[in-house]
Amino acid sequence: MTHDNLESTYLAYLDALNARRFDALDRYVCDELVYNDRPLTREEYAAMIAEDTRAVPDLRYEAHLLSTHGDIVACRLWFDCTPKTTFLGLEPTGRPVSFAEHVFYRFEGERIAHVWSLIDREAVASQFDR
Amino acid sequence: MTHDNLESTYLAYLDALNARRFDALDRYVCDELVYNDRPLTREEYAAMIAEDTRAVPDLRYEAHLLSTHGDIVACRLWFDCTPKTTFLGLEPTGRPVSFAEHVFYRFEGERIAHVWSLIDREAVASQFDR
Repeated sequence: MTHDNLESTYLAYLDALNARRFDALDRYVCDELVYNDRPLTREEYAAMIAEDTRAVPDLRYEAHLLSTHGDIVACRLWFDCTPKTTFLGLEPTGRPVSFAEHVFYRFEGERIAHVWSLIDREAVASQFDR
Repeated sequence: MTHDNLESTYLAYLDALNARRFDALDRYVCDELVYNDRPLTREEYAAMIAEDTRAVPDLRYEAHLLSTHGDIVACRLWFDCTPKTTFLGLEPTGRPVSFAEHVFYRFEGERIAHVWSLIDREAVASQFDR
């Protein structure tokens, strides 16, 4: 797959998440994947993201920086959102928070097979404490 | 600059860090840069890294995943090391720790102009607590 294809596939995956089209994830995510060293089925992965979007109804995945090379996609995602229930183990304050996630993906064909994600939990926690 | 050039420049930068050749950083880092939204001179940036290597003498920057695209380098760095003094605000236990850093760089020409870094502080903290 070329760079442009992988980039457009990844951006379409983010669009599906932002539209809450979790039933379309079979197009973008392998049947089984590894998320931060944890083996998950696609259904378990989708349920994890769906849970985040229940806690944070306005959660929107925005690609701030994007680099694709070979079968790797690297993205700095940026979130501006207002958690409504417990999110990342923190209780909501009703105020909006902004934070980054730095995430790498290895694709097999056109689908995600491995995710390595780091979320800036310190930034979220410091905003919950304000 | 082509992909291959940017990748080899970045790997040479990691080699310089691993060899503690901080006086060679003018080759790889702009005179002034932005590190996680904080403006720094190259000397301040080098001093920050040198301080980490004093706290962790065997700190070695290993590129686990690397993606370069345009003027962006994205790297998942992996560290296996043994902190000797306070590191990331944590007191050393004498035991080795393993953790990841997910870092994006924007290059201007052949030099780093902007760094967005997230370190897996939770992983480090959990290993300090063992």
